[in-house]
Amino acid sequence: MTIRVAIAGARGKMGKEAVHTVMNHAEMELVSVLDYKKVGDTIADTKLFPSNFTAPIYIDLEQLNAETKPDVLVDLTTPEFVYEHTKQALELNIRPVVGTTGFSDEQLEELKALSKESKIGCIIAPNFAIGAVLMMKFAEQAAKYLPDIEIIEMHHDQKLDAPSGTAMKTAHLISQQRPIHEQGHVREKEILEGARGANYDGMRIHSVRLPGLVAHQQVLLGGEGQMLTLRHDSFNRGSFMSGVILSIQTVMEKEELIYGLEHIID
Amino acid sequence: MTIRVAIAGARGKMGKEAVHTVMNHAEMELVSVLDYKKVGDTIADTKLFPSNFTAPIYIDLEQLNAETKPDVLVDLTTPEFVYEHTKQALELNIRPVVGTTGFSDEQLEELKALSKESKIGCIIAPNFAIGAVLMMKFAEQAAKYLPDIEIIEMHHDQKLDAPSGTAMKTAHLISQQRPIHEQGHVREKEILEGARGANYDGMRIHSVRLPGLVAHQQVLLGGEGQMLTLRHDSFNRGSFMSGVILSIQTVMEKEELIYGLEHIID
Amino acid sequence: MTIRVAIAGARGKMGKEAVHTVMNHAEMELVSVLDYKKVGDTIADTKLFPSNFTAPIYIDLEQLNAETKPDVLVDLTTPEFVYEHTKQALELNIRPVVGTTGFSDEQLEELKALSKESKIGCIIAPNFAIGAVLMMKFAEQAAKYLPDIEIIEMHHDQKLDAPSGTAMKTAHLISQQRPIHEQGHVREKEILEGARGANYDGMRIHSVRLPGLVAHQQVLLGGEGQMLTLRHDSFNRGSFMSGVILSIQTVMEKEELIYGLEHIID
Amino acid sequence: MTIRVAIAGARGKMGKEAVHTVMNHAEMELVSVLDYKKVGDTIADTKLFPSNFTAPIYIDLEQLNAETKPDVLVDLTTPEFVYEHTKQALELNIRPVVGTTGFSDEQLEELKALSKESKIGCIIAPNFAIGAVLMMKFAEQAAKYLPDIEIIEMHHDQKLDAPSGTAMKTAHLISQQRPIHEQGHVREKEILEGARGANYDGMRIHSVRLPGLVAHQQVLLGGEGQMLTLRHDSFNRGSFMSGVILSIQTVMEKEELIYGLEHIID
Repeated sequence: MTIRVAIAGARGKMGKEAVHTVMNHAEMELVSVLDYKKVGDTIADTKLFPSNFTAPIYIDLEQLNAETKPDVLVDLTTPEFVYEHTKQALELNIRPVVGTTGFSDEQLEELKALSKESKIGCIIAPNFAIGAVLMMKFAEQAAKYLPDIEIIEMHHDQKLDAPSGTAMKTAHLISQQRPIHEQGHVREKEILEGARGANYDGMRIHSVRLPGLVAHQQVLLGGEGQMLTLRHDSFNRGSFMSGVILSIQTVMEKEELIYGLEHIID
Repeated sequence: MTIRVAIAGARGKMGKEAVHTVMNHAEMELVSVLDYKKVGDTIADTKLFPSNFTAPIYIDLEQLNAETKPDVLVDLTTPEFVYEHTKQALELNIRPVVGTTGFSDEQLEELKALSKESKIGCIIAPNFAIGAVLMMKFAEQAAKYLPDIEIIEMHHDQKLDAPSGTAMKTAHLISQQRPIHEQGHVREKEILEGARGANYDGMRIHSVRLPGLVAHQQVLLGGEGQMLTLRHDSFNRGSFMSGVILSIQTVMEKEELIYGLEHIID
Repeated sequence: MTIRVAIAGARGKMGKEAVHTVMNHAEMELVSVLDYKKVGDTIADTKLFPSNFTAPIYIDLEQLNAETKPDVLVDLTTPEFVYEHTKQALELNIRPVVGTTGFSDEQLEELKALSKESKIGCIIAPNFAIGAVLMMKFAEQAAKYLPDIEIIEMHHDQKLDAPSGTAMKTAHLISQQRPIHEQGHVREKEILEGARGANYDGMRIHSVRLPGLVAHQQVLLGGEGQMLTLRHDSFNRGSFMSGVILSIQTVMEKEELIYGLEHIID
Repeated sequence: MTIRVAIAGARGKMGKEAVHTVMNHAEMELVSVLDYKKVGDTIADTKLFPSNFTAPIYIDLEQLNAETKPDVLVDLTTPEFVYEHTKQALELNIRPVVGTTGFSDEQLEELKALSKESKIGCIIAPNFAIGAVLMMKFAEQAAKYLPDIEIIEMHHDQKLDAPSGTAMKTAHLISQQRPIHEQGHVREKEILEGARGANYDGMRIHSVRLPGLVAHQQVLLGGEGQMLTLRHDSFNRGSFMSGVILSIQTVMEKEELIYGLEHIID
């Protein structure tokens, strides 16, 4: 069976990748695209895609649904639009796959209820990179057995925040699996301030920023005589596409809202 | 509650480590040691341990049991002795924790039946390094989502076999989770024979042998735009001790035989 | 002093990067571009660059020189054209910086003589990635002290040849600094054929091919109780640009032909 | 030619390794041992070595020299004794190889003068691990071309100081080869204090402390589209022995004092 896919946000960086990914997938068909303004009849008209990319562009989801009957709506737009799209899609019995984090708690609760009631699956994923999600999940599992842990995350030097969001989330997940305890020697001393990194419930997080780097993280778990290292390297935006594909396939079999790729990976 | 522990094979390399590990553990007590010959009254007499290591040495398990009442028998002897020890321990209601691989299928079946019947737990672990067991388990899980995989194992240059047993076991576990498929370009060409490593159901395994190395393995899982790396470093024999401790603690709560540390890690 | 730069091959992948790199460099000016056909008056006309990129396009190097007086000609065209360009540039007293490998031995000798005679510097670099050149240079130096070496090179799975050209060159450089000797145990045995990789004068080379990877290499040098690892990661084509800049700056001070970036790095 | 070697400090951890190393070397002979008290006639008498290790023990260097004629004195004692040993050795025309850091500037100057005058070579090495010395040397060289650098050093969790001495020395060497400049984005912000590590002239140093680890360091040098990583792993004390051997061989050909292994590595 071919899954009929519509994409919202097709002209953005992630959106363009998603268009190519769906077009190249043997068991999916790109049936239409949702935009907020009429930029052409088909996506080929935008000059952003090859001339044989002929999915029609709609600015109204209801009309899009009536004319192109998508099974799934992949939404890669901004938080501003994504709540309305998702709600409307559920009401139209289109399964939403959403790659953004901009929902309020109330909005999430409402969408959950709506999904459950209508038995229309919905997947919301703050991080579509399957490798990164697996790294976090494994770190959480391993922390029970190897509870002394440090995280090194490495990004390009234009990144503003340290530690990264992924490092913070990883530390949060780990800290639920291990008793809080300070690491290192009790009389440990920093000769240069900051050498031992940031302290998150006793775990240490180190943020490297260098030109050339993209987005990388390693979780180091030490035990007597051994070390386990879980590392994820994201080399480019393509790293998100395997998660998009998996979500499209999985949402077809769900009858409720799922938040986070980790819950569809077993 | 303190767990009363007896050790068989206390004079071997692993056994010596285990003696120290149990002696240093707050919730365990080393109550006795089983040897095949009378090498002294206590382990201190062997000169292999400090003079305050006063666990008595027995050459008969029945007498050892009668006089020192162990909860658990940690067996680090050779395959030659281990089957008899394990069977006798189960009959005496002592829980065996065994770190060897020398059982025949028939022996294993018999021990399983005996354990089940008497409701006395028994743990047999070919590999006590928790980090290595986690690496294998995670590789198996991740292979479903990132099925293009290569393994690099690295050992000291006195190792005879390539690939290592751990690499072979990892590949075996992975191959049960992914469809067999050749990796690399179909027109790929080796300019120097062997460059692409060993082929295990399409996966590639590379064995590095260098002086200085101990025992290391990484599993590389590649996907579009990303890579997940699972790495275990074993720096010395101490890496096995966390697995011994976990097994002693876990066997107390079991009523059947468990083969492989991966089945007591969730 | 601003260095006046002309570029040949500006519309190619490397060429486009080079145009941006020179345009963004405070001490360089892009004065003109050499093409084999008249694709526009300026590079902006090609639509490949922003409209303020106004360097004029020439199809004749003599006219280009007369009208724009470049100090340096960066040549990123194909082997087919590069010999003629380089020879003509030297005759016109323009310093060539060439990023290709297609010269015959005779052509190289002739260009060397021409450069020496006219005292016009010329740099020919098969590999512009400074990090990769440093890795090779360091491997060569370290091999004297740590002569047991294995190379792991890792590339995307569309690469045809294994090992890579860089791995072969690294092995060649190393083998000139260490006595040929077989590595590993003399009774070492491959359980799976190819596990120990390719054999280059006793050194082992392993080629990993996975989707997601770009171009990576590590040289592992083992010694008693220690390992030195030299690793280069190339994440994208930008990795070549630091070598282009260094070559442009260095060629200004040279009066002879230099082959290989390693000879301008001390 | 066999080099005749005497060792001071043979009963210490490093000393014991050195005794074995010299005994196993085809071109060296252990002719005697210097101790501060009479612990036996030969080193075998100390029970620390096999019974065929028959090098005689002396408590007086002059008598040791008269009776055993060493070419080289390897001194692995404490700073307390090492200055007197070294001075006396030079006066007796024995070449000192010293593995400690406890000299005052005045003492060093005096020994330098003494060595030069008598034309007796002398090597003093704060770090005998050749791999670590190479890593530092390469980092210094590479910093000219890739000046954006972070250091990650990783040690067992019983280490008191952070950063390690090797990391501090590496940073010091690098900072002499690159202009001081802050790294990372100018508006970079630490969400958790210490995440960006210690600041050494704009370079960042991160100290990881975990059980299981021994002594490891990596120097990361980032540039546009690429990264060069220089990594040293010290797995055990044996890592120092290659440096001891090299020093013994090299001191035979020197006629002056050399401070630091980096100056005998080219």
